[in-house]
Amino acid sequence: MSKKINRRTFIKTTVAAGGAAAILPQTLFSSELKKRVKIGFIGTGLRGQWMLWLAAKYPDVDISAICDVDNGMIADALKIIKEGGKPEPHIYNNGEEDFLNMLDNEELDGVYIATPWEWHHPMAIAAMKSGKHVGTEVPAALTVDECWDLVKTSERSGKLCMIMENVCYRRDVMAVLNMVRQNMFGELLHCQGGYQHDLRHVKFNDGMSPYGGGVEFGEKGYSEAKWRTQHSVDRNGDLYPTHGLGPVSPMLNINRGNRMVHLTSTATQSRGLHNYIIKKAGKNHPNADVDFKCGDIVTTVIKCANGQSIMLSHDTNNPRPYSLNFRVQGTQGIWQKDARSIYIEGQSKEEHRWDKEDDYLEKFDHPLWKKFENQAAGSGHGGMDFFILRAFIESLKGADPVIDVYDAVSMSVVSPLSEKSIRLGSAAVKIPDFTRGKWKTNDPIFGLDNYM
Amino acid sequence: MSKKINRRTFIKTTVAAGGAAAILPQTLFSSELKKRVKIGFIGTGLRGQWMLWLAAKYPDVDISAICDVDNGMIADALKIIKEGGKPEPHIYNNGEEDFLNMLDNEELDGVYIATPWEWHHPMAIAAMKSGKHVGTEVPAALTVDECWDLVKTSERSGKLCMIMENVCYRRDVMAVLNMVRQNMFGELLHCQGGYQHDLRHVKFNDGMSPYGGGVEFGEKGYSEAKWRTQHSVDRNGDLYPTHGLGPVSPMLNINRGNRMVHLTSTATQSRGLHNYIIKKAGKNHPNADVDFKCGDIVTTVIKCANGQSIMLSHDTNNPRPYSLNFRVQGTQGIWQKDARSIYIEGQSKEEHRWDKEDDYLEKFDHPLWKKFENQAAGSGHGGMDFFILRAFIESLKGADPVIDVYDAVSMSVVSPLSEKSIRLGSAAVKIPDFTRGKWKTNDPIFGLDNYM
Repeated sequence: MSKKINRRTFIKTTVAAGGAAAILPQTLFSSELKKRVKIGFIGTGLRGQWMLWLAAKYPDVDISAICDVDNGMIADALKIIKEGGKPEPHIYNNGEEDFLNMLDNEELDGVYIATPWEWHHPMAIAAMKSGKHVGTEVPAALTVDECWDLVKTSERSGKLCMIMENVCYRRDVMAVLNMVRQNMFGELLHCQGGYQHDLRHVKFNDGMSPYGGGVEFGEKGYSEAKWRTQHSVDRNGDLYPTHGLGPVSPMLNINRGNRMVHLTSTATQSRGLHNYIIKKAGKNHPNADVDFKCGDIVTTVIKCANGQSIMLSHDTNNPRPYSLNFRVQGTQGIWQKDARSIYIEGQSKEEHRWDKEDDYLEKFDHPLWKKFENQAAGSGHGGMDFFILRAFIESLKGADPVIDVYDAVSMSVVSPLSEKSIRLGSAAVKIPDFTRGKWKTNDPIFGLDNYM
Repeated sequence: MSKKINRRTFIKTTVAAGGAAAILPQTLFSSELKKRVKIGFIGTGLRGQWMLWLAAKYPDVDISAICDVDNGMIADALKIIKEGGKPEPHIYNNGEEDFLNMLDNEELDGVYIATPWEWHHPMAIAAMKSGKHVGTEVPAALTVDECWDLVKTSERSGKLCMIMENVCYRRDVMAVLNMVRQNMFGELLHCQGGYQHDLRHVKFNDGMSPYGGGVEFGEKGYSEAKWRTQHSVDRNGDLYPTHGLGPVSPMLNINRGNRMVHLTSTATQSRGLHNYIIKKAGKNHPNADVDFKCGDIVTTVIKCANGQSIMLSHDTNNPRPYSLNFRVQGTQGIWQKDARSIYIEGQSKEEHRWDKEDDYLEKFDHPLWKKFENQAAGSGHGGMDFFILRAFIESLKGADPVIDVYDAVSMSVVSPLSEKSIRLGSAAVKIPDFTRGKWKTNDPIFGLDNYM
């Protein structure tokens, strides 16, 4: 499920070998809605390339323009587009601000953003202001002000600001959402999620290949290590909450019947990244002196207006198996992912004993997955990438959005607020109501039977 | 592992049948230390009876006196003592204050307290002031002031105030403690524990049998329902933190090299107990109008002086399989109980993949368990009760305590502080240093190789 592992596999098996397109015949990627759409891609690093590869499968999607500061990444992207059978797009590679020229020059329906985190907000704002819909990689923003800025700009411009939170579409997660909607768990009480992923081989590399070698980052790093690691130096908080929070948000009707009202965060000491440098390169390596501010494990507890709590964990600097830590619990039952178990009162085989999750996940498999499982297979991250990109494309064609700016900011704002809570000794911090009261009357939009 | 289930089994299979003593031959229960000790028992309800039954196995333990307000419970206790081959003790059954007469009249080495929670503190104080060592069931106190009172009284009197937190002795927990001490997990970062146990059949009954029938509590309830349930009416917090916190405390060197500095608690809405009444007895039952203040799931996050965090969950009002939610994580590895899994960098079979816990738990089985596994078998709660009672008896004989008043209060104080945090909207609440600085220099005392 790791972005990194799958990307690496992708790079090895498809780009290098140059022949995986056949796995996903283009005809499967036709849309419900008959309209051509033009998309510009800002950020053609490894994540952007993957999504370009997927987008190129759609006959009615034009990849009109691409933009990146790195000519090596641009070259890789062009190769993928060509192999996907698409015409060469316009290229914007003239420095950090060239995306503004792309937005000025190009007639686009939407812009997909896969740049370093700190660029998501300014690029999304500029895109919406220039009349383009936006799909931005996670997180959508890094500060509370940026979150408000996205909301106001989306509202004023009437443009979509969708956060490309692919885990919302994980098959087990959608089956559990289906179970929640069918009242299998009763009234929800508590959800958990998180990002528990040993990223040491991502945060550091040798400056030439993305994974698994060296202890360099920043200027001397490559790919994500170039920019992502610095956040662990400068910030102490849950740096990456959306993979855990995104999936449980629709279950709890966040922004649509419910909202998050406050949170507390508690960080442990910071050890893992320093230890990794010492272990790999010794005490004399210049990075051995770097002071990483981010606590190794950050635990955040969110309180919702309807009473529920959400516990999120951020845990990326030490050895551990990957887990998004999901748990969904209500008055009638509980799903706990790490144990692959479900218990439903009156339905589980034995009282007080877990059932295996498998039968439930199969029985409650979401209609969306049933419909598109063939297309999703091989599309990245267990099919999640297929769905999130497809939802973006369908929105560009005029379908009602299924993830919007309120989701983008409610998922993203946990980072700055967790930093604030930790700075204040785990103080409870209020979470803004970005819907300005509309959460009380808004209806759910995600994972309905509209096949998005 | 449930107190209730095991007690029920005990009542059914041993007291009623009257013949289980043969399972545990008395000769196995001889002590290392040659001294007779006299113990008085305050509280001879179901928990007290169980511990009486175990205590009666020790040839060098005199059960000198018993005390309870309920003559039915006294009668049951006397039967157990007689069947255990012990002389009839002095009986104190003359109302709520008669324990004071017992403490005045009797020459005792120690007093074991198994009364309703609110009585633990006054009885422990009175016992220590009258020159007796104390073993109290959990929790030791209900307020911060009561915690300080226990500390000061124990210090002034020189008497032990041990909390009988049996889960500290769970076999897997002790194996993991052993792994922690052998640095298998590296430097600890984060621990989890909790009390996740559907207690609805305990909090309510029919006033005649302890479990599984009716929706009565308080005056009309029986056994724990008589007093325990009222805490869910009056208090919103983690009412029962010690089973989760006790076991991880020695791993984190709490009170001995480390301490807890602050906590936050977040409670969900309260639904489960009301739902249970409605489901079992309908809307017209008088208890259908009771307003239960305690949130169904309370999540508490504690920050430690050495940087670590501890997450505790309290979850007793809704259907769910039993779990104490253990997780122990450090810079080199992680144990996660619900998944029955361990991962240790460089030792696990595959990188990034869980191993089953079994091999580790066997390999690192604690010396105490190796030595006493035959005696522990059948002694209640998977053997934990054998160890906790034995540790108390050994302390009475003069051995160095392995759990003391600082443990009693640091485990117990989480309840009132979690109530305060919730009352203040999940505010961070400081945790007193009950050792007054001695935590910095005190050495660990629990689970060492002294066979206690």
